[in-house]
Amino acid sequence: MDAKKRHHKVVDCTIRDGGLVNNWDFSVDFVRSLYRCLNEAGVDYMEIGYKNSPKLLPGAEKSGPWRFLNDDWLRAVITEKGSTKLSALVDIGRVDVDDILPREESVLDLIRVACYIHEVDKALELISIFHDRGYETTLNIMALSGVKEHQLDSAFGLVNDSVVDVVYIVDSYGSLMPSDIGYLVKKFRKLLPNKRLGAHMHNNLQLAFANTLLCAEKGVELLDGSVYGMGRAAGNCPTELLAARLNPAKYSLRPILRMIDDYMIPLREKEEWGYIVPYMITGTLGEHPRSAMALRGSPDRDKSLGFFDKLTTPETGKSH
Amino acid sequence: MDAKKRHHKVVDCTIRDGGLVNNWDFSVDFVRSLYRCLNEAGVDYMEIGYKNSPKLLPGAEKSGPWRFLNDDWLRAVITEKGSTKLSALVDIGRVDVDDILPREESVLDLIRVACYIHEVDKALELISIFHDRGYETTLNIMALSGVKEHQLDSAFGLVNDSVVDVVYIVDSYGSLMPSDIGYLVKKFRKLLPNKRLGAHMHNNLQLAFANTLLCAEKGVELLDGSVYGMGRAAGNCPTELLAARLNPAKYSLRPILRMIDDYMIPLREKEEWGYIVPYMITGTLGEHPRSAMALRGSPDRDKSLGFFDKLTTPETGKSH
Repeated sequence: MDAKKRHHKVVDCTIRDGGLVNNWDFSVDFVRSLYRCLNEAGVDYMEIGYKNSPKLLPGAEKSGPWRFLNDDWLRAVITEKGSTKLSALVDIGRVDVDDILPREESVLDLIRVACYIHEVDKALELISIFHDRGYETTLNIMALSGVKEHQLDSAFGLVNDSVVDVVYIVDSYGSLMPSDIGYLVKKFRKLLPNKRLGAHMHNNLQLAFANTLLCAEKGVELLDGSVYGMGRAAGNCPTELLAARLNPAKYSLRPILRMIDDYMIPLREKEEWGYIVPYMITGTLGEHPRSAMALRGSPDRDKSLGFFDKLTTPETGKSH
Repeated sequence: MDAKKRHHKVVDCTIRDGGLVNNWDFSVDFVRSLYRCLNEAGVDYMEIGYKNSPKLLPGAEKSGPWRFLNDDWLRAVITEKGSTKLSALVDIGRVDVDDILPREESVLDLIRVACYIHEVDKALELISIFHDRGYETTLNIMALSGVKEHQLDSAFGLVNDSVVDVVYIVDSYGSLMPSDIGYLVKKFRKLLPNKRLGAHMHNNLQLAFANTLLCAEKGVELLDGSVYGMGRAAGNCPTELLAARLNPAKYSLRPILRMIDDYMIPLREKEEWGYIVPYMITGTLGEHPRSAMALRGSPDRDKSLGFFDKLTTPETGKSH
């Protein structure tokens, strides 16, 4: 095993990104079983949800608790910490910094801040506060495929001057090809010489695992996955594949198989994610999957040709 | 577009490899619709089945006709040839060379010979005959992941002296990682300097598309796929992804979407293929999927943990 491989850390996002599929309706038993599974499998981090504030984002009464993580609740769920660290994601404008306890009073270890390119300054302000309270931090810039070169350059100036530990390459639309990954990792490494990197891929083109492996090979350290690929729309890089193939000396597939058998297969019968043609279409067009998600909730769910035509015809309703 | 990309040709194996899933039970309407679809999409070849002889392989009365292709039947099905060429696969010992008409009397253009490494000499004898009758030919060496270096070297001596047009890299068990692909393509190119190459990948580790792209990038010319990935066990590289991303100037996704909507989605409700955990397990262990296929036909179909333990425990039934 070369030195690079030893650095890799897997961040399982099943609860956080998978919650976008089932409105965070995971039982305490499910979450505890997943935490046990990830500990046994040697997975480095578990992202246990969003740290949204119910004061800033409505809907707390309609969503599972993992969308509005509360430290008292978390302590009751995770009564004993294992070697798997806990992470929470925050969105700009939805987190109340007064909710963030000093790290020694929280079960959380890592706070990740998701933002669009024009919000990087605000994200870094939050990160500075979380860093001062003792947390590890990451900056996850979303929708990279649409970001212009000069926007990236100027945002990265701010990032270099910040305390953030890790900067993520996020393929929000699942549209990045391996050649794009090669370009982006090179660019990120050049422009952020003193930052560690992370990768969060979506599976619209069946490339999430391959692109994550490619990132790993190029020295990206934090690698996001989710068990059985559960995540919004086409889902994520499957954690079980990372556990099986990334570094057999460190990770173990077996505990994740138990989680899949007992929890994920029954859940997949009720909820939908994965390689589904309308998500492939938005991926190949480099678009947000929301139109495909709407289609899947309609009677036309399997009419991918009409969906493709609608997305690719300049003026819908007119003939050309 | 660089010169390399212009050389790529897509070989759709839906009927041939997909037939391993449904016992070649495709209607004439299905096959004609697929042929029309592939022509419209710009796909270069359609592998329409196996050219097995009913005299040499029993079961013709129990399988669909695409397992025992007959030239009279084929002419009745494909009444008008388009730009998509037609291909048939033959297995050593199951083809009667007397069944192979001269190419000008057949609708077939390409005959591919599948063999294991120890049968390369026999495969090349067949290929020589097919070549003399006017066909394009390929040699598809199966189960490469278990082939020893010196076996490959000595087999390739014979291949170099033969008339075969294209030699395939076949990932029979879906166990090859991108790093393996890099190694194999380099090796094949070095040992077979005057042969064109092909790639046939399986999707056990969600790497079929990525590995096929990697082959394409490294100059492999013939790229196998199947619509909606239909193929034995975990299936193949999806033809729709190749059409969408390989070369938009040459291939068109739209006709394939129609085929998926009208035929593949209903078929997938009756038949099973794709990323299914027991197939991932055989892929990661580098094994033939037959044990996983047996599991999927049993009441324990979703008990992947027990399956994994059985495959990885040296002596089943004993405790360790």
